[in-house]
Amino acid sequence: MKYIRLKHTELDVSNLIMGNMRLAQLSLREAETLIRTAMDEGINFFDHADIYGQGRCEERFAEAIQMNQGIREKMILQSKCGIRSKENYYDFSKEHIVGSVDGILQRLKTDYLDILLLHRPDPLVEPTKVAEAFDALHRSGKVRYFGVSNHNPAQIELLQKFTPHKIVANQIQFSLAHTPAIDSGIALNMGIDQSINRDSSILDYCRLHDISMQAWSPFQHGSFEGPFLGNTEKFPELNKTIRSIAETYSVTDTAIATAWITRHPANIHVVLGTTNPQRIKDACKGSDLSLTREEWYRLYKAAGNIVP
Amino acid sequence: MKYIRLKHTELDVSNLIMGNMRLAQLSLREAETLIRTAMDEGINFFDHADIYGQGRCEERFAEAIQMNQGIREKMILQSKCGIRSKENYYDFSKEHIVGSVDGILQRLKTDYLDILLLHRPDPLVEPTKVAEAFDALHRSGKVRYFGVSNHNPAQIELLQKFTPHKIVANQIQFSLAHTPAIDSGIALNMGIDQSINRDSSILDYCRLHDISMQAWSPFQHGSFEGPFLGNTEKFPELNKTIRSIAETYSVTDTAIATAWITRHPANIHVVLGTTNPQRIKDACKGSDLSLTREEWYRLYKAAGNIVP
Amino acid sequence: MKYIRLKHTELDVSNLIMGNMRLAQLSLREAETLIRTAMDEGINFFDHADIYGQGRCEERFAEAIQMNQGIREKMILQSKCGIRSKENYYDFSKEHIVGSVDGILQRLKTDYLDILLLHRPDPLVEPTKVAEAFDALHRSGKVRYFGVSNHNPAQIELLQKFTPHKIVANQIQFSLAHTPAIDSGIALNMGIDQSINRDSSILDYCRLHDISMQAWSPFQHGSFEGPFLGNTEKFPELNKTIRSIAETYSVTDTAIATAWITRHPANIHVVLGTTNPQRIKDACKGSDLSLTREEWYRLYKAAGNIVP
Repeated sequence: MKYIRLKHTELDVSNLIMGNMRLAQLSLREAETLIRTAMDEGINFFDHADIYGQGRCEERFAEAIQMNQGIREKMILQSKCGIRSKENYYDFSKEHIVGSVDGILQRLKTDYLDILLLHRPDPLVEPTKVAEAFDALHRSGKVRYFGVSNHNPAQIELLQKFTPHKIVANQIQFSLAHTPAIDSGIALNMGIDQSINRDSSILDYCRLHDISMQAWSPFQHGSFEGPFLGNTEKFPELNKTIRSIAETYSVTDTAIATAWITRHPANIHVVLGTTNPQRIKDACKGSDLSLTREEWYRLYKAAGNIVP
Repeated sequence: MKYIRLKHTELDVSNLIMGNMRLAQLSLREAETLIRTAMDEGINFFDHADIYGQGRCEERFAEAIQMNQGIREKMILQSKCGIRSKENYYDFSKEHIVGSVDGILQRLKTDYLDILLLHRPDPLVEPTKVAEAFDALHRSGKVRYFGVSNHNPAQIELLQKFTPHKIVANQIQFSLAHTPAIDSGIALNMGIDQSINRDSSILDYCRLHDISMQAWSPFQHGSFEGPFLGNTEKFPELNKTIRSIAETYSVTDTAIATAWITRHPANIHVVLGTTNPQRIKDACKGSDLSLTREEWYRLYKAAGNIVP
Repeated sequence: MKYIRLKHTELDVSNLIMGNMRLAQLSLREAETLIRTAMDEGINFFDHADIYGQGRCEERFAEAIQMNQGIREKMILQSKCGIRSKENYYDFSKEHIVGSVDGILQRLKTDYLDILLLHRPDPLVEPTKVAEAFDALHRSGKVRYFGVSNHNPAQIELLQKFTPHKIVANQIQFSLAHTPAIDSGIALNMGIDQSINRDSSILDYCRLHDISMQAWSPFQHGSFEGPFLGNTEKFPELNKTIRSIAETYSVTDTAIATAWITRHPANIHVVLGTTNPQRIKDACKGSDLSLTREEWYRLYKAAGNIVP
């Protein structure tokens, strides 16, 4: 397992993250097995959100590992807020952010989060209010560091202008079958669909400003349209290429799909949302597997992208 | 009526603006009624352009209110130049800008503009020439402040690099049925049409740099394709939702369409281009009507947009 | 011939560049004639790339003019590296960049390049490694100045953050029939295809940061889909308009297509990739032909673009 010191923090985190979006679907025993597997593999970074299972995922997590101070200190805990899921809108008001964190801490049975992410950008954001929320949460010791998810450069700049707390992370969708963050940059100024800007250069922006990237849905394509691994109907060439490279390294396809992300010099973290312990083990083999440039590009092209 | 101090200026302006694009279609008496209605409602901000009615709108305005120093000082007057409408091209040469302002002042029967906007970005702009024009206009007292219209961030930066005069405003198309300035930012990095970048984050950029936003065509959709209010064929869900919220507040649909814009924390000004005095009165009810976050998002979604 | 002092350099270069992409298709004698024609016309700027003809274009160039110190010093030589053409991927590793330059110098029979461009952006770039390569190449006297090709603003910023060597040039595709670098900027925030951001404001960014622009394929449309000059089937209006303006100035259509680019105040260099000496002569007539604003826009619109 590869560990990375997050810039502007004192956190040394594994480059794989256990994502707990689906934990409420598991029994307590299954959940415990899953978390223990992750920890045994060296994962020390756990991702939550207040809306996952309407809070039940965070609860299940704390129960499953019988949260206590000893185990808490072995973990880097991250959660997210800012979405009102019932009415489906975003709310970056001070009251909502501060109140949400109280709920998160209660459910996770802990006194503090290592990182709080704002889940999706609120067009009605008042950055001074977010700054007040961050101040209050930091001063009270409830949150150590702050970040965002699904934010573009201008949105981050607007937040950062009004708060002294460095935005340290940005979690976006990224996988071999979902690469807007690469596509338009490699094909600037062309007439093809790939050249259409959908990413506002978010990956390069984050590299420039020491903002750690995290990849959600690392094995999925589209908007929750399912896994591309094993989907040989829609992704025949990609699966064939993954298989061939997996054989070279004697690892699983999952490891290669993971390694394609960890190979990127931006040190992108991979959020594993699987509920299958074996898949976690497989993915961990990709944590420190350094694909060659040629292999990385071969996979990118096999996913249907153009390298002009 | 809500008033806003424009940043980097000494101007306290109403958040609704009377737009005079169609004034030449009215008789002198109708024009006077329209302007008096706006002023009686508290509007003190008037938007023009040299090309509206080929100059006849500015003339009609000055005639209709029998422009004199007393009334002039109650108004914030803004006009635009930079389009050569006969041949349909843009011209940001020093000569054209300076000459255009002389024409504007003559037609408006005033000595000065409060704000001059460059109407549409000229790809052949030489920013040092624009800077010379701004200097000359400011030194002679003909223009107090400068802004732009339909400009993107890089275009503004290029201008700003060469002039000490702060760009204080940017007027773009914005309405419940025309929201590119919101759409891609809320749906970063997705495969859907909404995620396509057409706005270069102009709204967040202007917030970051204290540039006041103004919304033209606040009740229209597409490129002058007509009003969405009452167009229940193309916008059934939107009109239904507007109606329902209008009933809650006991105001007209026009007030709600206005309030959706004024609710935004960027303090976006609404340019009312209507020739109907009653519609001005209706819109003014939305000047200071603060929709809830939930209502704002409900309207945005009813217009056909996705909140991921 | 118009000459331009490249900012942040001591280079005075012609605004037309001879591009040597197809030189390997010519006999030694034909190649010599072509190069002599360019030089006789006043062109002193020559563009290469290590991959053109798999290196044979650079070789042919040096042989054709019997490269020696006397002739070398009359030239500004530019080449590019960073593409591994056999396997079709990009490689900005220090080893690859430094090794590529050694090959270029050997083939061109010279001790130094005036400008080295990174050919296409490598998503796996490690900017500190590029910086090391630039340092080594500059210290050894092998490269005087550095630039890029087909790079967007964020990619340039990422490189520039880690190297003290100023990025002085960016070469992108640009012609009357290929204008993404103009299109979205002139039509911000609209629903039409032209408004789709494919260029990340690269042209304005380069103006802002004193990065010289170079236009490749100045007479082509699409992705190497052929010339638009004379293609009256696909570009009837454009060819008619070019013809009409060419008659006004008593020059060829080629001169007008060239002048449309050189007219831009960004001082865009035109890379002539033709193998036809007469076409070089024709193009040179456009080097210093200053189209009026009206003509420039008329041509832009005749190419099918909207000026809103």
